[in-house]
Amino acid sequence: MVLVDVGVGRCWCVVGTVAGMTSPRLDPAADVVALTAAVCDVGSESGCEGPLADAVEELLRSAGHLEVSRFGNVVVARTDLGRDERVILAGHLDTVPAAEGPFGWNVPTKRVPAQQSGSGVEELWGRGTVDMLGGVAVQLRVALDVPEPNRDVTFVFYDNEEVAAPLNGLGHVVADHPELLVGDFAVLLEPTSVAVEGGCKGTLRCEVVVPGVAAHSGRPWMGVNAIHRASEVLDALASFEVRTVDVDGLTYHEGLSAVGVRGGTAGNVVPDECVVTVNYRFAPDLSGAQAQERMRELFAPFEVRVTDLAEGARPGLDSQVARGFVESVVGCSWDEVVSRGLVAGGAAGVDPLGASSLLVRAKEGWTDVARFSALGVPAVNFGPGNPLLAHKADEHAPVEDYRRALAALCRWLGQ
Amino acid sequence: MVLVDVGVGRCWCVVGTVAGMTSPRLDPAADVVALTAAVCDVGSESGCEGPLADAVEELLRSAGHLEVSRFGNVVVARTDLGRDERVILAGHLDTVPAAEGPFGWNVPTKRVPAQQSGSGVEELWGRGTVDMLGGVAVQLRVALDVPEPNRDVTFVFYDNEEVAAPLNGLGHVVADHPELLVGDFAVLLEPTSVAVEGGCKGTLRCEVVVPGVAAHSGRPWMGVNAIHRASEVLDALASFEVRTVDVDGLTYHEGLSAVGVRGGTAGNVVPDECVVTVNYRFAPDLSGAQAQERMRELFAPFEVRVTDLAEGARPGLDSQVARGFVESVVGCSWDEVVSRGLVAGGAAGVDPLGASSLLVRAKEGWTDVARFSALGVPAVNFGPGNPLLAHKADEHAPVEDYRRALAALCRWLGQ
Repeated sequence: MVLVDVGVGRCWCVVGTVAGMTSPRLDPAADVVALTAAVCDVGSESGCEGPLADAVEELLRSAGHLEVSRFGNVVVARTDLGRDERVILAGHLDTVPAAEGPFGWNVPTKRVPAQQSGSGVEELWGRGTVDMLGGVAVQLRVALDVPEPNRDVTFVFYDNEEVAAPLNGLGHVVADHPELLVGDFAVLLEPTSVAVEGGCKGTLRCEVVVPGVAAHSGRPWMGVNAIHRASEVLDALASFEVRTVDVDGLTYHEGLSAVGVRGGTAGNVVPDECVVTVNYRFAPDLSGAQAQERMRELFAPFEVRVTDLAEGARPGLDSQVARGFVESVVGCSWDEVVSRGLVAGGAAGVDPLGASSLLVRAKEGWTDVARFSALGVPAVNFGPGNPLLAHKADEHAPVEDYRRALAALCRWLGQ
Repeated sequence: MVLVDVGVGRCWCVVGTVAGMTSPRLDPAADVVALTAAVCDVGSESGCEGPLADAVEELLRSAGHLEVSRFGNVVVARTDLGRDERVILAGHLDTVPAAEGPFGWNVPTKRVPAQQSGSGVEELWGRGTVDMLGGVAVQLRVALDVPEPNRDVTFVFYDNEEVAAPLNGLGHVVADHPELLVGDFAVLLEPTSVAVEGGCKGTLRCEVVVPGVAAHSGRPWMGVNAIHRASEVLDALASFEVRTVDVDGLTYHEGLSAVGVRGGTAGNVVPDECVVTVNYRFAPDLSGAQAQERMRELFAPFEVRVTDLAEGARPGLDSQVARGFVESVVGCSWDEVVSRGLVAGGAAGVDPLGASSLLVRAKEGWTDVARFSALGVPAVNFGPGNPLLAHKADEHAPVEDYRRALAALCRWLGQ
């Protein structure tokens, strides 16, 4: 038994098994709402997914019709019915740490009846109810409830999505067992309020380094103040054309944000360096290399050090299998989806805040769909819960979201 | 014997006395140049002044004509001849830590003959040769060489000038033994290249707090970026009227510098706060309260948190005793000093870089003359060494500076 600091805030967890201790078990008869609550209540902050991975593995093995593999805290389950098509349903097991919210600490979960909730519908509150253990519960119910899907299905449950990219369990499967990720289409059950969110923006993080010349602040004219010069960087940020871009029919809103700034060595010294850290969320019509080039041009003549880069993912809604998924979810043909204005695209001025009523839209955050995209597998995000509540102390979702997501996936898989 | 971290970089020192160890002794027959080298070579980084204070105390007691007191590592020596006037010569015993320079580490000192020095004059190189153990050696030689000065003299040697203000030994004398600082005039032997530098600017340090609203950087339009808003603070800094002010005939050049900036919580979060730390060096025509008011007006509507404030000091060159000191140093009457253009004042456009040839000028840095000023004692800075070389790895001074400073003070004291 070892105490391990996994470097994610308050998450200290016990690794290993104490004699006589058993992992929690998930009830195969629980409905998707009760199963979501049970999954959340296991507790699975990043780095501490072991007990939940154990419970997920045991539940999947109990079904009998799935081939189940386990790698660390990654669990993969597959049907192998020889169908023409194979699709992947993927979700991460980890959550960000618990936090104090309107009900006190957001663990364990609390079910709030419609007449007591602010929204007038029944809700489930707690860490993971949005991001994304509701999605995990939906995956589990699909795995148990659809033993003979009309297309073969690979279910992937992975760890460490909320922490540094090198730890990401899906990334480890990509590297070590790519054959398990072969498929024609992937659905990542990240929260989308049960809409289809296609692709994702790329993300580039870079440091813009502004040099100066140190001097005593009693005689500042002897130096060049790097912090004062950093106003050129802030002016460049303000002048940047933040694009709204249509890609494969969906509209992506770029973002360019300073996410950090540091400078200064002592209270009486004109600083000789100021570093502004910038995060560019770029539409998936640009490659990472093109995004870098835009940053270097924008911040010239200052040095730009790229510290982190993840490619975006095109939504892939030009593929037949992706359109078939949308048709199942929305319940009408692709042409009807488009003609009824259910796709957030075309109008460059679409208010991103108003987009939540659209059923097919662009994913504004970065998600692991980019990993599938990089493998050549078209992928979308589709899951229960409002993504704006992810990581919040008041994380909660309408329980109907879990049922709707489950029903849509079952319909798609021919149940 | 205790190892003490005094919080000033690499300065770890041994406190207490090991049996059989004796403090170094200073040779009462050494000339001022040799004495400067000997004082420097004792080693007296801030917090480690004990051995040098011991040696100074012993040397002063050996003279016989002085009343010597010791408080911690502060040494005070006084003549008590019943003169009408009493003046104070003060200097600090501590130095900033040693550093690596053109000759390797700048301890111990090295004497460089004229034919080998870049300047063509003989120099003494090493930590403390400028700031300000040359001044300390001059004080010691005056104390030994002028047993019957024409005005009574109080010599003050104190510790911890280079570190946080609450540790400052002169401040402790002000608080605990103010009777020892009674006088008509004070000379602080800080480096001035043997010019008279009057008064000092005040210094105010404050944090300007720019608020924002946090959001995920994938959807930056949901928040308000505090770092982007900080451009308003940088614009205010750029727009500030940095004054050049005449006070009692000397010209002070104000300075307003950002000395620190911090903001950002994570690489994917629009930051909700950015803090710019600003240092305002204000001319002594303003009080600290007035300087604060200027900062609050400049940075409105942002919150301004004052973290550090030291009043400036007017030069006091309107007093007869101060003018008498200048006349002794320059060797002519006050009217001649002014008519020969030896005072840096009047012309608002004076280039501060060109001021070094002037014999009477404003002190651009903050020094302990402000403590004397606060006690109602007019005070000036006057000492060997170029202040621009203070704290530098290549700290050095022409040896003639030590001799000139000593000669001027002896002349003033009637020797």
